[in-house]
Amino acid sequence: MMKRAVVLLSGGVDSTTTLAVARQRGFQTYALTFGYGQRHAAEVDAARRVAQALGAARHKVVVIDLRAFGGSALTADIAVPKDRAAGDIGTGIPITYVPARNTIFLSYALAWAEVLGAQDILIGVSEIDYSGYPDCRPEYAGACERMANLATKAGVEGQKLKIHTPLIHLTKAEIIAQGAALGVDFSLTLSGYDPSPDGAACGRCDACVLRRKGFERAGVADPTRYRAG
Amino acid sequence: MMKRAVVLLSGGVDSTTTLAVARQRGFQTYALTFGYGQRHAAEVDAARRVAQALGAARHKVVVIDLRAFGGSALTADIAVPKDRAAGDIGTGIPITYVPARNTIFLSYALAWAEVLGAQDILIGVSEIDYSGYPDCRPEYAGACERMANLATKAGVEGQKLKIHTPLIHLTKAEIIAQGAALGVDFSLTLSGYDPSPDGAACGRCDACVLRRKGFERAGVADPTRYRAG
Repeated sequence: MMKRAVVLLSGGVDSTTTLAVARQRGFQTYALTFGYGQRHAAEVDAARRVAQALGAARHKVVVIDLRAFGGSALTADIAVPKDRAAGDIGTGIPITYVPARNTIFLSYALAWAEVLGAQDILIGVSEIDYSGYPDCRPEYAGACERMANLATKAGVEGQKLKIHTPLIHLTKAEIIAQGAALGVDFSLTLSGYDPSPDGAACGRCDACVLRRKGFERAGVADPTRYRAG
Repeated sequence: MMKRAVVLLSGGVDSTTTLAVARQRGFQTYALTFGYGQRHAAEVDAARRVAQALGAARHKVVVIDLRAFGGSALTADIAVPKDRAAGDIGTGIPITYVPARNTIFLSYALAWAEVLGAQDILIGVSEIDYSGYPDCRPEYAGACERMANLATKAGVEGQKLKIHTPLIHLTKAEIIAQGAALGVDFSLTLSGYDPSPDGAACGRCDACVLRRKGFERAGVADPTRYRAG
């Protein structure tokens, strides 16, 4: 039987590449997507397309209300910063940081992994382009893994759970190159903090700036549909 | 200014006593309750009464769908065990264990703490009566705290977050005695895995058996309303 892995899938470039890596490593994949806030309905659609294209055994969308607590441009009514230079991105903790987001995501992944009997969780964080996010660093992922192995029935009974972060040391260009090498169709993905209702990327927020530069540097054609204006 | 603390509040005996402890320790309290599954609507009502009675600055109810993953009698359609002897409770990991539940709860508490600028989270777990739950042990709480301090802006910037488990070494009788000493009105609380729609406790599940015995041993009158039959 193939080993099962839970893969966090937002439908963007990074998590899509992570799903392709999981498949290449021989896992039967269980893709987990979070719907939080109206803004990201287009992201959930992208995740569905990607999960299907990459042969996930199951794809689960869990709706959570991160806006309950406010505190981030991604979940509250604060403008997303636009048109920052790539060099300014990743200095300090950005306003788009969502409090404890990856911790919440990983805790749900842990619940599903336990029910599935899976010992592997993959998350596509990178400390390179987003050094401003505390929960994208290797020491964070390591602490999560230790916590997970104390939290669960499986961990306590000796079936150690592993949190894989295959992109953690990769730049956006390296992530795109790796995804392309694994046959990812990036036209299915969606990036950016402020897509239009039909899923076109804004082209101007930090995520879009990094993505655009990443495709350039990787020498991969950028299939992103950008919104007008 | 009073220090703020987020307190996980289910509306049962343990979390209610924990809220009273937080108040006694001088915290301004922010009570956080989770609604998951129809079964526990009565629990959310109890939490509201308790938060008000104990002067919480705010009470937030976050609805989450733990049934999305199944795997527990508390969230899936599996019968709750009844009429077990107190001596049999806490041997092995019980079927009422919800995968990663406390991890999910604490991750939301962490998000709220970060937004509030709170450095303290209180959770009323006890390893004594529920030794079967891996996420009720001190080593788990410690690992969570280390993870939290790597996950968040506040932690990274040196404002260390603390996860308090004031009941962790207490028996149910000791918890009840402490709550009573702090003036808790236990008639507001609700315990048990299978309350009736109007909030009467079943009296027969593991939680009810332990609670009933706890009141007896503490020498505190048990105000619990038990359902007929």
